[in-house]
Amino acid sequence: MVEQDNNPPAVKRLAVIGVGLIGGSLARALRAIGQVGEVVGCGRNVAHLQRGMDLGVIDTFATDPVEAVAGADMVLVAVPLSAMRQVFAAIEPGLGPDTVISDVGSAKVSVIEDARAVLGSALDRFVPGHPIAGTEKSGVEASFPDLYRGRRVILTPMAETRPEALQLVRRVWRLAGAEVTDMAPEHHDEVLAATSHLPHVLAYGLVDTLSRWSDRDEIFQYAAGGFRDFTRIASSDPAMWRDICLANHDAVVVALERYSAALATLTDAVRERDGDQLIACFSNARDARQRFLDMLER
Amino acid sequence: MVEQDNNPPAVKRLAVIGVGLIGGSLARALRAIGQVGEVVGCGRNVAHLQRGMDLGVIDTFATDPVEAVAGADMVLVAVPLSAMRQVFAAIEPGLGPDTVISDVGSAKVSVIEDARAVLGSALDRFVPGHPIAGTEKSGVEASFPDLYRGRRVILTPMAETRPEALQLVRRVWRLAGAEVTDMAPEHHDEVLAATSHLPHVLAYGLVDTLSRWSDRDEIFQYAAGGFRDFTRIASSDPAMWRDICLANHDAVVVALERYSAALATLTDAVRERDGDQLIACFSNARDARQRFLDMLER
Ligand SMILES: NC(=O)c1ccc[n+]([C@@H]2O[C@H](COP(=O)([O-])OP(=O)(O)OC[C@H]3O[C@@H](n4cnc5c(N)ncnc54)[C@H](OP(=O)(O)O)[C@@H]3O)[C@@H](O)[C@H]2O)c1
Ligand SMILES: NC(=O)c1ccc[n+]([C@@H]2O[C@H](COP(=O)([O-])OP(=O)(O)OC[C@H]3O[C@@H](n4cnc5c(N)ncnc54)[C@H](OP(=O)(O)O)[C@@H]3O)[C@@H](O)[C@H]2O)c1
Repeated sequence: MVEQDNNPPAVKRLAVIGVGLIGGSLARALRAIGQVGEVVGCGRNVAHLQRGMDLGVIDTFATDPVEAVAGADMVLVAVPLSAMRQVFAAIEPGLGPDTVISDVGSAKVSVIEDARAVLGSALDRFVPGHPIAGTEKSGVEASFPDLYRGRRVILTPMAETRPEALQLVRRVWRLAGAEVTDMAPEHHDEVLAATSHLPHVLAYGLVDTLSRWSDRDEIFQYAAGGFRDFTRIASSDPAMWRDICLANHDAVVVALERYSAALATLTDAVRERDGDQLIACFSNARDARQRFLDMLER
Repeated sequence: MVEQDNNPPAVKRLAVIGVGLIGGSLARALRAIGQVGEVVGCGRNVAHLQRGMDLGVIDTFATDPVEAVAGADMVLVAVPLSAMRQVFAAIEPGLGPDTVISDVGSAKVSVIEDARAVLGSALDRFVPGHPIAGTEKSGVEASFPDLYRGRRVILTPMAETRPEALQLVRRVWRLAGAEVTDMAPEHHDEVLAATSHLPHVLAYGLVDTLSRWSDRDEIFQYAAGGFRDFTRIASSDPAMWRDICLANHDAVVVALERYSAALATLTDAVRERDGDQLIACFSNARDARQRFLDMLER
């Protein structure tokens, strides 16, 4: 898939607003295959941006968003969800007539609302996106070029999104090694609430609850390997997950309510010693997880 | 810690009732270091026992429990929790006056009740135990000698347990590489309900719920790496976990109720968009998990 060196790169000038794990990794991926001419970084903290330059993730940086996006053919907004609207508003005056804007936010309905509120005439070149990839770490130090290899990226174009903008963003993620799917933003938010946002809240809630158990230190002492895996996602960035819960609150609440109802039923089954109901649930879960693993293999 | 070959082994004749993952692994561990003279296996299925012989886990086998325990200085009962009472009753007539009996059941109050009901005069040589080690796999094929290396084993001796019986069982697990702790059975059941039984029910419940979501296949398609880790324990043996929930129902119900209450509070926080409360919970969880990891390192 790597194109000839004498062909122009997919993106001549890429501005990355928020050079952290997600933004930094896309920049690295494109640089590694020569598919980006120049990468301009933008953020609030000069030391972070300098670190991005030292690591070879960006070529140059600006703390002024208008300056950062000047002359860019693509702007990737990879900041926390809570900063999206403010960043869109800040870059808007600097966007050229053909600049394509995309984001990586973990919720999509809220980001589209933000874009609609402040992107003005640039809205038709905005392509909302979400790479289903990440680690518990954050910051540019944690970024690496292969983060998106074999992973999925969901794009949630709006009615007004220009086809050529969608096409560029799709091409960029494919070059980074991802499989790109389109989805309605509401559907994206429901699906991700179920498979990602809900598990994170459950894991955080479990570790928090156990840490408040009367003899908490002892409790962790007798936790086995399964506990370590089960709670890995509770080591994720708390601010990012607060933002996600706030941005996608409706779908997250629905998922939590659905799960709580299922848990109440399971608790009743344990209380009433209904072994048949327990084994039906556990067996169905094990089989479903096996289907999920088989799906990953394919 | 390996003793000289010319010293007698810790156990001259070990009977393992239930030669699966847990029983098979202890037999393998002791054999690997020459700390067992002969291992006699016992189970319901001759093909399973034959497989145990082929794999070198046991030297011989009997399907009759009385025959299996004849002349044994130690009997390890490693059957499902739901079979404990029946197995204790079946071996009782064959036990010698000094035979030490131990078990590996994941709940301890119920096993002690079973032992009290049927072990008769052998009760003072019964040492209830639980190795905090395992995998999602079961059966003798899954057993391996290093399963207990560096892991904890909890023993929950009763008032009547003879010191020399406790000492032998402690020695055996230490020889297998485990760190042995004593605990009151009720306390064991509470601690394990929190750190092991609750997480398993939560993981099974999540995968079961998601598999019943309207567009279930699609949902799993967009699950990322975190989901795989989070749900690993939902691939555990459903019958074993039903048994555990039934055997330890009181403590499991308490843990589930406590967790459900915490989840309701978290759901309210999302509903009311209370970012401060969310970040307080998530940060505390992340810090507590870090303490847990630091503890594992030490
Ligand atoms: N991590 C994941 O697993 C994952 C997966 C998929 C999508 N996402 C989404 O990706 C986005 C970024 O997450 P991340 O994991 O890459 O976080 P990160 O590593 O913390 O990076 C965020 C970057 O944004 C910058 N930033 C923060 N506020 C800003 C503002 N107001 N203006 C300009 N720059 C700002 C930060 O730099 P300064 O501090 O120097 O400003 C930092 O470089 C989030 O929207 C998240 O929902 C994350
Ligand atoms: N797996 C874990 O993570 C783990 C961890 C700690 C403790 N434990 C405890 O260890 C015990 C065994 O679990 P495991 O994982 O080793 O299960 P396993 O691999 O399925 O082994 C259970 C063994 O018990 C035998 N068995 C079943 N019912 C029996 C009966 N009525 N009479 C005689 N033998 C019988 C089975 O053989 P046949 O089918 O041939 O009879 C099988 O070999 C359980 O009490 C469990 O709570 C498990």
